[in-house]
Amino acid sequence: VQPEKIEELVEKFKQKDKSALARFISLIENEPDMASAVFSRFDPPQQPSFIIGITGPPGAGKSTLINQLVEKLTAQGKSVGVISVDPSSPFSGGAFLGDRIRMSASVQHELCFMRSMASRGSVGGLSRATFDTCLLYEAFGFEIIIIETVGAGQSEVEVLKFADTILVLNVPGLGDSIQCQKAGIIEIGDILVVNKKDLGGEEIAVQLDLMLDDAVMFIGESGWRPPVVQTNSISGEGFDELIEEIWNHKNHITLSGELVEKHKKRMKEKLMDVLQFKIRNFILEQIYPKIESSVWDQINQNKYSVYSIAGDIYNTFLSKLKGSDE
Amino acid sequence: VQPEKIEELVEKFKQKDKSALARFISLIENEPDMASAVFSRFDPPQQPSFIIGITGPPGAGKSTLINQLVEKLTAQGKSVGVISVDPSSPFSGGAFLGDRIRMSASVQHELCFMRSMASRGSVGGLSRATFDTCLLYEAFGFEIIIIETVGAGQSEVEVLKFADTILVLNVPGLGDSIQCQKAGIIEIGDILVVNKKDLGGEEIAVQLDLMLDDAVMFIGESGWRPPVVQTNSISGEGFDELIEEIWNHKNHITLSGELVEKHKKRMKEKLMDVLQFKIRNFILEQIYPKIESSVWDQINQNKYSVYSIAGDIYNTFLSKLKGSDE
Repeated sequence: VQPEKIEELVEKFKQKDKSALARFISLIENEPDMASAVFSRFDPPQQPSFIIGITGPPGAGKSTLINQLVEKLTAQGKSVGVISVDPSSPFSGGAFLGDRIRMSASVQHELCFMRSMASRGSVGGLSRATFDTCLLYEAFGFEIIIIETVGAGQSEVEVLKFADTILVLNVPGLGDSIQCQKAGIIEIGDILVVNKKDLGGEEIAVQLDLMLDDAVMFIGESGWRPPVVQTNSISGEGFDELIEEIWNHKNHITLSGELVEKHKKRMKEKLMDVLQFKIRNFILEQIYPKIESSVWDQINQNKYSVYSIAGDIYNTFLSKLKGSDE
Repeated sequence: VQPEKIEELVEKFKQKDKSALARFISLIENEPDMASAVFSRFDPPQQPSFIIGITGPPGAGKSTLINQLVEKLTAQGKSVGVISVDPSSPFSGGAFLGDRIRMSASVQHELCFMRSMASRGSVGGLSRATFDTCLLYEAFGFEIIIIETVGAGQSEVEVLKFADTILVLNVPGLGDSIQCQKAGIIEIGDILVVNKKDLGGEEIAVQLDLMLDDAVMFIGESGWRPPVVQTNSISGEGFDELIEEIWNHKNHITLSGELVEKHKKRMKEKLMDVLQFKIRNFILEQIYPKIESSVWDQINQNKYSVYSIAGDIYNTFLSKLKGSDE
């Protein structure tokens, strides 16, 4: 991509052109190296977007919940950007077509934009692409960002670290158990959602409430006790309460200072991420070509030597840095 | 852990003490920094272990398949180390208790050792821990290593890059589809396994065979056409054929040179991984403390500046390296 082309896209982007937004997301997802050139052309965001993470097991009804949530929020005049992290294969790079289709109704709304991230590419790439898309959404002016992710897979759940408020969708599991409990994702929920229409939905809501009353583990440092909200994604029942609880949580973490701390921590990790990406390229381009084939032979003949050889390379590297300090 | 303690464990390890093996796995999983100290004390492996990766959707019957496979292999006098990558939460760090219990029967065999990896900790940590466990198993002398992983989640599927031969377990999905096809993991299979006992198992086997006949995409560079094997994990039916196909694939990739190339590539990535881990610590310990609070303020006030600030830090760092070269 030419610099003039980026300049042109930035102009369109500032005029709220969604196709420019889409182009930037693809560009940064496919060529992380371009992120710096793109973001350096943006003004600081007017206001931070509020980021809602939504997770739950596959088939829990996340897409219909988001459709309904987006409808309610846009009806209130809020603009919403959705990022869907698909449980697709890192090998095929595809996404579940069904979900994309199901999401399309509310997504066509003027105040909404939706993008799905395939979890292809390197581990860590998904997290980077998701955060950069959040930055793009924020620059575009979305008041709310929704990150939808399936509660399976480490990389997939990791993206929830970017969320300010996390909603966990609970569905009945086999026997008496709640599936989310088994998967260990209940603990991360700031708000627990139970689908009213589900067989045994009401029962689960009661069960969750009792569990929360019992367990200190669910009460965060700031003293927030996750509410349990029953919703019906078809009729829209319970969504006013759900939205109210989202704002309650937002107020709570704003007053406790948690929100600011979360954002600071996120930027600290982002800086590390960008640095690591640069250094990885440095190793590949500057260090790897200088490694002699005899060293590779040594590693291949004795795998255990990889640690000591890495240590040698690192020390040479370090001594250069130290030497120049003096 | 004291150096003398490591020395003592290495002695026990060399005498094939499984408790020393277990201690080393835990040590390296929890303190990756210790890996260098441990591996530097090992002799080069006598022979490389052959690594079999087994994947499939949750509930496909991977554990019972592995139980049966381990039983057959140990009956032939082969020693087998199993690594199970659990779909547990990165937050809770737990593992599905059920699977651990189900696996225990064959695991008690003298020639077998089983360990499950929780996918807790940082993204990338799972992959590192899995590879290091493979190195430990190899040093211990296991002829065969089995890596079991659920076909969901990027980090979880990524560990299959360490496998020489990949088995994909196929189960009937909703409607006519095959669940693995939906998840996009069929393509990575060197051998496709269908459970005979499953409703529609035979039909799926036929379907897969037809698909393979049609699709060039399934034929790897070396010209291997994945066979479809029907098994019954309870009766043991089909397991002789399965084991034969595993050795067929091993011979195929040995003759084509693919096996050697895979191993070389793996070590190249491992070196990168170790270097990146060291450099990450260097950034955290040497660079982060020197970043002034005004710079953090700048990043927090304008998130987009994180890219240019990372660029500045990286350039300073680089100029030191270059300066010392002259």
